[in-house]
Amino acid sequence: MILQLPKGTRDFSPEEKISRDRIIGTLKEVFELYGYAPLETPVLEKFDILSSKYAGGAEILKETFRLTDQGGRELGLRYDLTVPLARYIGMNPSIKMPFKRYQIGDVFRDGPVASARYRQFTQCDVDIVGSSSMATDAEIVSLAYTAFCKLNLQAVVKVNNRKLLNDILDYCGLEKDRQESAILSIDKLEKFGREYVKNELKAQKIDERKINTLLGIISLKGENEEKISQLNKFLKDSDGLKEIEELLAHTKAMGLEAGFDVSLARGLSYYTGTVFEAMLKDSGVASSVCGGGRYDNMIGNFLGKGACPAVGISFGLDRIYDALAEKQDSRKKTNTQVYVIPIKALSEGIKAAWQLRDAGIKTDIDSTGKSPSKNLEYANSLGIPYAIFVGKKELEAGKLKLRDMESGKEELLSIERAIELLKNVK
Amino acid sequence: MILQLPKGTRDFSPEEKISRDRIIGTLKEVFELYGYAPLETPVLEKFDILSSKYAGGAEILKETFRLTDQGGRELGLRYDLTVPLARYIGMNPSIKMPFKRYQIGDVFRDGPVASARYRQFTQCDVDIVGSSSMATDAEIVSLAYTAFCKLNLQAVVKVNNRKLLNDILDYCGLEKDRQESAILSIDKLEKFGREYVKNELKAQKIDERKINTLLGIISLKGENEEKISQLNKFLKDSDGLKEIEELLAHTKAMGLEAGFDVSLARGLSYYTGTVFEAMLKDSGVASSVCGGGRYDNMIGNFLGKGACPAVGISFGLDRIYDALAEKQDSRKKTNTQVYVIPIKALSEGIKAAWQLRDAGIKTDIDSTGKSPSKNLEYANSLGIPYAIFVGKKELEAGKLKLRDMESGKEELLSIERAIELLKNVK
Repeated sequence: MILQLPKGTRDFSPEEKISRDRIIGTLKEVFELYGYAPLETPVLEKFDILSSKYAGGAEILKETFRLTDQGGRELGLRYDLTVPLARYIGMNPSIKMPFKRYQIGDVFRDGPVASARYRQFTQCDVDIVGSSSMATDAEIVSLAYTAFCKLNLQAVVKVNNRKLLNDILDYCGLEKDRQESAILSIDKLEKFGREYVKNELKAQKIDERKINTLLGIISLKGENEEKISQLNKFLKDSDGLKEIEELLAHTKAMGLEAGFDVSLARGLSYYTGTVFEAMLKDSGVASSVCGGGRYDNMIGNFLGKGACPAVGISFGLDRIYDALAEKQDSRKKTNTQVYVIPIKALSEGIKAAWQLRDAGIKTDIDSTGKSPSKNLEYANSLGIPYAIFVGKKELEAGKLKLRDMESGKEELLSIERAIELLKNVK
Repeated sequence: MILQLPKGTRDFSPEEKISRDRIIGTLKEVFELYGYAPLETPVLEKFDILSSKYAGGAEILKETFRLTDQGGRELGLRYDLTVPLARYIGMNPSIKMPFKRYQIGDVFRDGPVASARYRQFTQCDVDIVGSSSMATDAEIVSLAYTAFCKLNLQAVVKVNNRKLLNDILDYCGLEKDRQESAILSIDKLEKFGREYVKNELKAQKIDERKINTLLGIISLKGENEEKISQLNKFLKDSDGLKEIEELLAHTKAMGLEAGFDVSLARGLSYYTGTVFEAMLKDSGVASSVCGGGRYDNMIGNFLGKGACPAVGISFGLDRIYDALAEKQDSRKKTNTQVYVIPIKALSEGIKAAWQLRDAGIKTDIDSTGKSPSKNLEYANSLGIPYAIFVGKKELEAGKLKLRDMESGKEELLSIERAIELLKNVK
């Protein structure tokens, strides 16, 4: 039997998992700081829910892991956390609105296994359902900045508005039924450049004069205010532009620099207003580390009810992890604080370990009877910062020997004193 | 479309998830207190790994969710966290031994959907690979007691030894090839009673005289020491009995009351020595809330190498959750500490929320412009303990109004004073 992982999945070693847990802990802290409540839904969903026409759409459905249970029921592994949210809201009609929830969980996509694409990856989502105020969208921008600040990552949050994009396309004379595909092309401006987008739009049989007007507008440069004043010159009564102005007024009042980017569109077709994306500054991780937007129709459509305003953002744990992994200084090999080495005094060693743990100190102990030097080698390889020798001779004097693994300095002291010292080096 | 969950799965509402997160947090804390390191492996595993003859066995394989990816690869959803551990060790031969790891994750079983059986449930496992010392087994007992103590649950940990059971069966004259199925029957003594077990053993064509001797022995009553001294009378040189004596000497030295139960067997056939099980006292949750044992051959067999000693225990999160859910007092509806209600002063409200969050206070805010009374109703339904009114008039005096949602008491104060107060009610 060949020991292998399924393609596109990976294990996380203790060192890697400690780092992931720290990121998750920080995101949870920030989500709760902003008043979001945790939700957990199963990995398995009924296939007809995942494949609803109002759900993720045809592209994502092609990548859905599908299975049949022993009762012949069609199931699938969730490909995102938004469809389960819509289902949850539908099944719990008494939920108080607005409903602010976060969910951190694994999602699955049976797609082509490209270089940095995983088939199981962790999403960290926050969504507010039931508020159409732009103050809500601004809160999401603020939350993203707080998260990156606490993660010690330099990021910039870019914003745009899908209604504004539709108004711009109207102004350029594009027919409604061509706007959706044009928007998907516009989204590629930053990544693939002007010529690439121009060719895609030409392939959609859009008049070259219209394309040039459009590219001129979405390439607008300058400060947010300049872009808005430029757009105000030719767009009359654009709701999208008003929403962006309101959103930016809120973020400015909070002292945040959200970057208005007229070419930002985000692939998904269900967005109806604000769209967000955050990119890291000075990082090898080129793609966006979080993204989202306002989707006022999706949940209502999904549930067969009227509009149900919603806005949310999703942080990609794996990309944030990769970005932090570039910074070697942030790695921590172990959470264990001290390693007890009994020297022909196993039961005394066990007692010392018990006392240390009882005092809240994360303690490991050798139970295999290795030699002291082998034990030091072991503690060192695990990166445990302190060792305690428990030997009969020292015990007679009521003492233990504490060793600082980095400096090699050793000290004879009582267990109480050792606990005091270890508590202070946390 | 009917909104439904797959059979045997469930959602956890914010209130439920807060409680689950608290249990997980406590278990993580205890696992790390004992020096275990976190590991994460994928939900998907290759089917040939899960179905290896050294893995979980035929019974569990019948309940394995199976699927094929788009590349035609046979995959399955993991049914436990032990087989992935064996695979991980095989794929990482440079791991330092002993390897102490914990893993908290969902596992999946496509079994019959009985009353309290879930098809997705969370296991919290600790295992030590690479130590055959009984001090290690004692550490697991100690860890279990610490966990239940910190969870505020009254539990008793029962122990036995599979080698001892085999020695007892030898003494009763049972042929080796009948011992495995006899052990599975013995395991049912506590649950179904003496007559039930007797009939099962009779059906296995075991001589009635042998059955009576056996039942006499496994029904031994009294203190641990009395049982050991009784067994010592007729078992000569039983390694299993020596191991139990050593294990109980360690736990006694730690002041722990592990209960020696000669009828405890645990279903799985891969156990080779100590077996553990913990039951709650005074709880409606009748089944065991954690269980495990020593499996010295499984990992080595699985990897095609020699013996690789291992011992571990698995906590069932769902059963612990159900047991704690019986205690209503432990429920907490929200983590949010304060709800900001702007009264015609949205941007001032946003600023106040920003300051509160910046000070580390978990803050929600109304962005929908509801009336103050609707807002109080909302905050109350979510269980948020404090509300802050931000109104123009109060702001002119540099004040906000803080309301204690339980007593209804209101106070005019500065934002700094409000922060100070809220920090102290954590």
